[in-house]
Amino acid sequence: MAKAKIAVNGYGTIGKRVADAVKAQDDMEIIGVSKTRPNYEAIVAQQLGYDIYAPAANLEAFEKAGVPTAGTIEEMVEKADLVVDCTPGGVGEQNKPMYEKAGVKAIWQGGESHPIAGFSFNAVCNYEQAIGRDLVRVVSCNTTALCRVIFPIDKELGVKKVRAILARRAADPNDVKKGPINAIVPDPAKLPSHHGPDVRSVLPNINITSAALKIPTTLMHVHTVNMELNTNCTAEDVKNILGSQSRIHFVGQGISSTAEIIEFARDIGRPRNDMWENCIWPESVTVTENELYFFQAVHQESIVVPENVDAIRAMMELESDGAKSIEKTNKALGL
Amino acid sequence: MAKAKIAVNGYGTIGKRVADAVKAQDDMEIIGVSKTRPNYEAIVAQQLGYDIYAPAANLEAFEKAGVPTAGTIEEMVEKADLVVDCTPGGVGEQNKPMYEKAGVKAIWQGGESHPIAGFSFNAVCNYEQAIGRDLVRVVSCNTTALCRVIFPIDKELGVKKVRAILARRAADPNDVKKGPINAIVPDPAKLPSHHGPDVRSVLPNINITSAALKIPTTLMHVHTVNMELNTNCTAEDVKNILGSQSRIHFVGQGISSTAEIIEFARDIGRPRNDMWENCIWPESVTVTENELYFFQAVHQESIVVPENVDAIRAMMELESDGAKSIEKTNKALGL
Repeated sequence: MAKAKIAVNGYGTIGKRVADAVKAQDDMEIIGVSKTRPNYEAIVAQQLGYDIYAPAANLEAFEKAGVPTAGTIEEMVEKADLVVDCTPGGVGEQNKPMYEKAGVKAIWQGGESHPIAGFSFNAVCNYEQAIGRDLVRVVSCNTTALCRVIFPIDKELGVKKVRAILARRAADPNDVKKGPINAIVPDPAKLPSHHGPDVRSVLPNINITSAALKIPTTLMHVHTVNMELNTNCTAEDVKNILGSQSRIHFVGQGISSTAEIIEFARDIGRPRNDMWENCIWPESVTVTENELYFFQAVHQESIVVPENVDAIRAMMELESDGAKSIEKTNKALGL
Repeated sequence: MAKAKIAVNGYGTIGKRVADAVKAQDDMEIIGVSKTRPNYEAIVAQQLGYDIYAPAANLEAFEKAGVPTAGTIEEMVEKADLVVDCTPGGVGEQNKPMYEKAGVKAIWQGGESHPIAGFSFNAVCNYEQAIGRDLVRVVSCNTTALCRVIFPIDKELGVKKVRAILARRAADPNDVKKGPINAIVPDPAKLPSHHGPDVRSVLPNINITSAALKIPTTLMHVHTVNMELNTNCTAEDVKNILGSQSRIHFVGQGISSTAEIIEFARDIGRPRNDMWENCIWPESVTVTENELYFFQAVHQESIVVPENVDAIRAMMELESDGAKSIEKTNKALGL
């Protein structure tokens, strides 16, 4: 079978990771990535052997910078079966007519809102419903992390209500423009935040509230998750359920913070020190008065990457079984 | 009436503030403060005119450093009616025999555990029960902030359950030794944290859980507070209840973070930019499904300072009405 031809529109934090993850699969290939400016990330794309496409108006700038392009973004889109849009939140929506005109399938990220695709994706929750779809939105890092824990617990124990409090990293490690550097910012101050309720774009029957604080760190988010359960259970029951999920990782052995999680990822040779899994502190898993509490750390740069691969596989009808796709993606990534 | 003679044992973050706050009252006076080493804070105490006392073994070091002392800590304690112990958590307990031997009343801070005094104090919650007591523990900054909001809401609406998630400043502004500088630390990872349950040392009938994260900031803590209520109400009702409390301040007018709260305190001329009040974002006050949510910022260095003054007034029987003591303390401080 011919490999599915994938274009990545927007080779930034998520796009460069999705490109590498797609490249690692045997049933899909990258036919090009786009950059708007010939910056250091474009040089990296060039060194990694990706064909680079750019806006027509900027092709000359790329040429001058010594970064050859293969054409315009429209030309890239024409060659693809499916475009993964990894442009900044809000920009993706402007690209929709281009994808429709070219008749390609498209994936957007969580920075866009649900209606852009009419379908919000998480591999364990709704892979089968994405099969053959033309338009899909892969939900954000925070929503992905919440869906991964809520879905299996709801399935086994029944979730009455979720309250998620997010301590959000202020900026990604390469982003020198954002703050705060010494403050806590309610984000937003008006409650609830959109993060928890966005879970309902994937799991519409879950009752969930959330609040978020932006804090001075770049490495990971940390969620304090509270779930009211319908079934009497112990912390061990919950750990068994979560432990059966391939994209949930229990941290331990002296890992006391997000810094040590990233150090662990560096030490085991993960590309760009990525942690694709939810990282849960097992000692935090507590059940009291039929309520579950735990802490999970979320690597905002990479957690959605395997989800994008699975979304491609469903949309391109390369695999009809979600569990098999997840396993195939994980194996190719080394997860 | 002679002023109550107060000694402050431990002239650090809390002690130096308590000393100034006591000095501002007309019914009590500072007879001395203690320092273990002749560092910059001892120089400040000297410049502010406080008599400085030190451990017998260190008197010579003070002399050599050009910081004259008035005697040993034991001598200071002998001269006092009441000692406010502001030594680091755990050290206060070692001082108890000294206070008992001298027959003085004593206040400890929240770093010590409840049994040290057998009574944990918050001015709005239990002033009257502290009247005439010899030993009192003023609860920590986080517990103080939680008690101040839980007590009036429980009184008016009935509180079924509280879930408090604390984003804790990693270190005070002058503390260069502590971290993290770029990480989030579950503190502790094992749930629940002690912070919420410590509220029960003041309000034993409140059902409360808590979780805490240590984060890279020095300015203030931020609490995300969730309360299940027994009474149907609106956000306006809650704002009216909290707004009637003199030590609760609603932030607004473009204050989006803890940094701007501290800038506000600097601009209005607060000593050491102290915010003695709970700082609540009014737009965060939300009631849904009989559950209240809001964000409050807590200035860890100063929030317990007025509480210490009120505790002194109750223990020394200078005022029998808690509300009047609170008003008197506030007025003298300029709150």
